[in-house]
Amino acid sequence: MKLTLPDAEPEAVGADVVLSALAGAGVDTLFANPGTSEMHLVAALDREPRIRPVLCLFEGVATGAADGYARMAGRPACVLLHLGPGYSNGAANLHNARRAYSPVVSLVGDHAVSHRHLDAPLASDIATLAAASSNWIRTAEEPNDVGLLVQEAVAASMGPPAGPATLILPADCTWAPAPPPPPQRAFASKPHLDAAQVEAAAASIRAARAPLLLLGGKALEEKGLRAAARLAGAGYRIATETFPARQARGTNIIAPDRMKYFGELALADLAPHDLLVLAGAAEPVAFFAYPNAPGSLVPPGCRVLPLVPAGRDSSDALAFLADVLGCGEPPAGGPKLALAEPTGQLTPQSIGISVARHLPSGAIVSDDAVTGSQPVFSATASAARHDWLSLTGGAIGQGIPVGIGAAIAQPGAKVVVLTGDGAGMYTPQSLWTIARENLDVIVVIFANRSYRILDIEYRRTGAGRPGPAAAALLDIGNPALDWVALAKGHGVSAATCSDASSFDALFARAMAQPGPMLIEAVIA
Amino acid sequence: MKLTLPDAEPEAVGADVVLSALAGAGVDTLFANPGTSEMHLVAALDREPRIRPVLCLFEGVATGAADGYARMAGRPACVLLHLGPGYSNGAANLHNARRAYSPVVSLVGDHAVSHRHLDAPLASDIATLAAASSNWIRTAEEPNDVGLLVQEAVAASMGPPAGPATLILPADCTWAPAPPPPPQRAFASKPHLDAAQVEAAAASIRAARAPLLLLGGKALEEKGLRAAARLAGAGYRIATETFPARQARGTNIIAPDRMKYFGELALADLAPHDLLVLAGAAEPVAFFAYPNAPGSLVPPGCRVLPLVPAGRDSSDALAFLADVLGCGEPPAGGPKLALAEPTGQLTPQSIGISVARHLPSGAIVSDDAVTGSQPVFSATASAARHDWLSLTGGAIGQGIPVGIGAAIAQPGAKVVVLTGDGAGMYTPQSLWTIARENLDVIVVIFANRSYRILDIEYRRTGAGRPGPAAAALLDIGNPALDWVALAKGHGVSAATCSDASSFDALFARAMAQPGPMLIEAVIA
Repeated sequence: MKLTLPDAEPEAVGADVVLSALAGAGVDTLFANPGTSEMHLVAALDREPRIRPVLCLFEGVATGAADGYARMAGRPACVLLHLGPGYSNGAANLHNARRAYSPVVSLVGDHAVSHRHLDAPLASDIATLAAASSNWIRTAEEPNDVGLLVQEAVAASMGPPAGPATLILPADCTWAPAPPPPPQRAFASKPHLDAAQVEAAAASIRAARAPLLLLGGKALEEKGLRAAARLAGAGYRIATETFPARQARGTNIIAPDRMKYFGELALADLAPHDLLVLAGAAEPVAFFAYPNAPGSLVPPGCRVLPLVPAGRDSSDALAFLADVLGCGEPPAGGPKLALAEPTGQLTPQSIGISVARHLPSGAIVSDDAVTGSQPVFSATASAARHDWLSLTGGAIGQGIPVGIGAAIAQPGAKVVVLTGDGAGMYTPQSLWTIARENLDVIVVIFANRSYRILDIEYRRTGAGRPGPAAAALLDIGNPALDWVALAKGHGVSAATCSDASSFDALFARAMAQPGPMLIEAVIA
Repeated sequence: MKLTLPDAEPEAVGADVVLSALAGAGVDTLFANPGTSEMHLVAALDREPRIRPVLCLFEGVATGAADGYARMAGRPACVLLHLGPGYSNGAANLHNARRAYSPVVSLVGDHAVSHRHLDAPLASDIATLAAASSNWIRTAEEPNDVGLLVQEAVAASMGPPAGPATLILPADCTWAPAPPPPPQRAFASKPHLDAAQVEAAAASIRAARAPLLLLGGKALEEKGLRAAARLAGAGYRIATETFPARQARGTNIIAPDRMKYFGELALADLAPHDLLVLAGAAEPVAFFAYPNAPGSLVPPGCRVLPLVPAGRDSSDALAFLADVLGCGEPPAGGPKLALAEPTGQLTPQSIGISVARHLPSGAIVSDDAVTGSQPVFSATASAARHDWLSLTGGAIGQGIPVGIGAAIAQPGAKVVVLTGDGAGMYTPQSLWTIARENLDVIVVIFANRSYRILDIEYRRTGAGRPGPAAAALLDIGNPALDWVALAKGHGVSAATCSDASSFDALFARAMAQPGPMLIEAVIA
């Protein structure tokens, strides 16, 4: 029996309609790790020049890149994944994207509808797999559906609340002729504003002894922070959630306190407040449970009042709140601090000073450095104007992929990825896409050769001191990863250093020249 | 507020009971990538010397290693994963393990029961996530449950059918005091034999014009193949499923035809048969759907008759079938063929000859080489006695992890991993665990610098010839991955070669000396 191949396709097939509908809805980039069941979508890329495909060697790279793209572009990103295992490989960074409220559309190729009942080796229940990290899931059942379903998926990813949307595309829905997508309806996410709710909040704030405004989500972009600066200028305390998806920072941007990661520190910090107003942030809870420690971080007797529903853009509501509370314009920010070159031992603190010294205006920082992160965050509060992208969902391995997406969304920006050696090893393949696309991404590896956070958490959970078996599971230094070799293997040039002034010189050079580079920072 | 830490634990907590129940059920190895919510299980490892922890830097390495361990040890393997994202990262290789009918117990640490309602950043619906690739799922709700649940998980993983079992362990179920596990009940999987069913099959076989016995699963281990050799000796045609979990091969072992991967070739091969007897194999279906091609590979008019239910060990049934059909002992196998050293261009064929020449007796081959695989498989039919582990579920990235597990299950065996450069990049972190544990694993990278299978599948799906955009998505040679550098980065020594006689010399050396090595085979 011979396989009968149809002629090269003269009429539009489902795959063309999928891409056309994506482009029509404003999607211009497709982060892809395709397989056989997506081949017609791959073929259709040659007929749809409005979509740029970006190949990733592992699905977690593609989904993380889509998240970074969505955060910086402010519009939906798209990934192409191969059946259930492909979705699973990308799911951890989709979990992070869900926590970031990032509009990410996952297109998952599945077996043809006619093939599904056969339980072929790659078959699995993709819709169930996708449920945990998708706000919206649909499966196309025939080619006629795909145009509208793509439009719905893009709209669903925008929310509110924004987040991952998953469209499962059986292969025969992409290879069979299909009608063009319906006319694209206009849609846009806009900030949430309920004037009565804001006025009520203002009254509560006035009545409170010590109110705190906790900002999260879109409120941490420039517009929301301008409003927050007015409120802070009038004496109201502002803080941000611990892991914002994107925060505007640096020159002339208010640098609010950040909620502490460790619950007991956060509780102590929040203890004086009798009112917590949530502006896009979720009610604060401990990241993990510990024996004999509370899970909620709201102090006893403190009232919690949402300004907008969770996951909504509260920037307009904050500005209106500042109006209602009669806040004037904030004082102008101070100039960028001149910091001396750090010397001596290389530490997260010295790295922070170097980053603050050399970060160019308009840079983007993607932070997955775990224990190395906070000192750099603190040091860069008065650096040049930049955006800071945090690990939102706790699934490490996000940093480099998010940096890829950010660089593609903002080609003119210098992207700095801060990642732990433990975290970086979840998605090391991301280095290859940086090389292939020649992205202006600098990756700093905090090489402490351990799961340092776990060494801390081990003691905090009351497990005592690690014995030899436990200590071995927290130690990734045997053998030590050679990040210069790893970078070279992926086609990225790299250097290593273990003292503060060498790092400062390497980082300065990396900021001054375009193109990819990895710096292995061997820290104590 | 200060965190109150309990004293170092004097009495057994849930974590101790978990490990004790595992050890009592015969589990001796724990492939782990733990996080904060698993810290008490990590701590308890220092109190349970019967369990060997093996650290992996990515969960897909841990689950693939567990699969390889289970295939070679023939008893349950165990992995320790961190919440939903950790499970997701390991899910693709659990999908493969499910298709391999491998007994793998996943212990997934979750937030404490008291913490679940707070929707902390790492929270997700783990039970739903795990549904697609688990035969059994339970969640502990209190410390009293954990001993029995672990025993049930291990028993469930044994089946029949064997496969992944997932036990979700909230952190407070591991840190709180817990009673010891109940007495361990004896359990063992044994081959399935229904004498009446076999006798009926024998009658059908006698009545058929051209019967075919299609073997799968446990029937491809030595015992089942001995019975198959008797049937083959009596003139009955034997074939195997395309991707067996484990097949005994080499000197004195029958080498049945293997079901073809491409559907049209398989259909042509099966066309003469009027009866298909399934001995542990599933009814044959096309791996993927293609336009105008059938999904089922059973020829029209051919009757299908299972000898045992799918996923069961049919070795006893095959032996009894040979008795009923009056088959004698098979002729002794021929001697190992003496093959001349290959020269000239390095190809999968020449690699096959080198592997056949030098593979030592008792070796294990873990095969994830995709298009490079078949020529090596064919060439090694008469090599020294070895076991061949295939990619069972189509989710590439299984080869190196499965090699880790196989090496740990059989410390005396030389393990050879055959993997594509595309496939190898899904779980490159596995090289680090090979170095750390100093495993006797040789990794051969088939570096064709493309997703070669997709180049073939692209044309087969009727998508025409790849244009520039499509071709770019099938090409992973820009930049070329430098596997020698990648291996060095992970602590594994490596060499590259691009002609047949260099490969032959490198492979011979790798077979002669113990310990890890990677060979980058740059093939046309």
